[in-house]
Amino acid sequence: MTDSSLAEMTFAVLGGTGPQGRGLARRFAAAGLSVVIGSRVAKNAEQVAAEISEATGAEVSGASNAQAAKAADVVLIVVPWEGHADLLGQLKGQLGGKVVVDCVNPLGFDRHGAFALRVEEGSATEQAAVILTESTVVGAFHNVSAALLNDPDVNSVDTDVLVLGDDRAATDMVQALADTVPGVRGVYGGRLRNAHQVEALTANLISVNRRYKAHSGVRVTDV
Amino acid sequence: MTDSSLAEMTFAVLGGTGPQGRGLARRFAAAGLSVVIGSRVAKNAEQVAAEISEATGAEVSGASNAQAAKAADVVLIVVPWEGHADLLGQLKGQLGGKVVVDCVNPLGFDRHGAFALRVEEGSATEQAAVILTESTVVGAFHNVSAALLNDPDVNSVDTDVLVLGDDRAATDMVQALADTVPGVRGVYGGRLRNAHQVEALTANLISVNRRYKAHSGVRVTDV
Repeated sequence: MTDSSLAEMTFAVLGGTGPQGRGLARRFAAAGLSVVIGSRVAKNAEQVAAEISEATGAEVSGASNAQAAKAADVVLIVVPWEGHADLLGQLKGQLGGKVVVDCVNPLGFDRHGAFALRVEEGSATEQAAVILTESTVVGAFHNVSAALLNDPDVNSVDTDVLVLGDDRAATDMVQALADTVPGVRGVYGGRLRNAHQVEALTANLISVNRRYKAHSGVRVTDV
Repeated sequence: MTDSSLAEMTFAVLGGTGPQGRGLARRFAAAGLSVVIGSRVAKNAEQVAAEISEATGAEVSGASNAQAAKAADVVLIVVPWEGHADLLGQLKGQLGGKVVVDCVNPLGFDRHGAFALRVEEGSATEQAAVILTESTVVGAFHNVSAALLNDPDVNSVDTDVLVLGDDRAATDMVQALADTVPGVRGVYGGRLRNAHQVEALTANLISVNRRYKAHSGVRVTDV
């Protein structure tokens, strides 16, 4: 999978009005990729798309989650965990035959910070795979700081993206997608069954951020 | 916690005849720390201790797990997951009042590689905390390559060690302990309840090692 094949695809970011989705959409648009932002309310997606277009000079469109999913070749899921299963169930038809990149972290929060939630299917990514039986599900972009993605003064984001999946062509494509963000490197991180700990590691990075006043990320060494 | 306070302590490595325990013991001894290796069979521990003494020029002793635990101020648990709960239950008395550093990864293996096992208490580290009610339990050293630790030609191990715990003095001490290994940096990684994903991440690193022919580790960025 080469960068030129990414250039022929359209990427939808569902939940693209939240901090993480907006940050990813912004970086992909800035890299010259075709991006459509999805949200529950189309008007909200259109507004964020206009803001990103203004900021990056790239043309980004906005639509309802269903329309965005329909329009795209590759669909990133960046919605809150609470609405994850419902949304995927509703969009199962539109997502069929496509690569779906799950970026959702099932976390809880209390006065001690963040902690991982138990997920019946094992992880958000595996839940997506259980629901979307006609899609190719990949997990990625769990640990990337939304603050850094959205900061126009941050030219390079110092982190690897662990890409999880059972389909080599799909994980290769998503690694190449991660590589389009300056500073970021896509690294194969294992099969879907090992997605939980990568999602949950975000709770640890939140603890790190609190202790060290940082926007932490993860690099895999010797690779 | 300063290096000089580490120098006044004795560190036991239970399960110190396995690759991970042996590698850690070797590096701690090379850093000038007082190390005693524990094993189920005292004679095996003595033999590995003699090998490490020979290799590093440091004096390392070997003993049964119980004797090693008794002799030490800080006890690292580096036994196979299968014997984890039993060993801790047997040594609860000897481990009371001490800092216990759990390094155990509950993993399964099949033809697709490694995967994380579900642990009733949440993680090996939390299981230790449930059993060892009179000890201060910390989780650490889960993701460090045993191959690199044991390789005499590797002068610097390129990885961070995420240190998990609810007691600041204990996690600070274990971070300083990690720092004694050249190349390694101890980083606070969150509370005990977030230990599972750090243990389980070892399965992902095993996948990385297989895909990239590497001895991978993890660095936390922006810290």
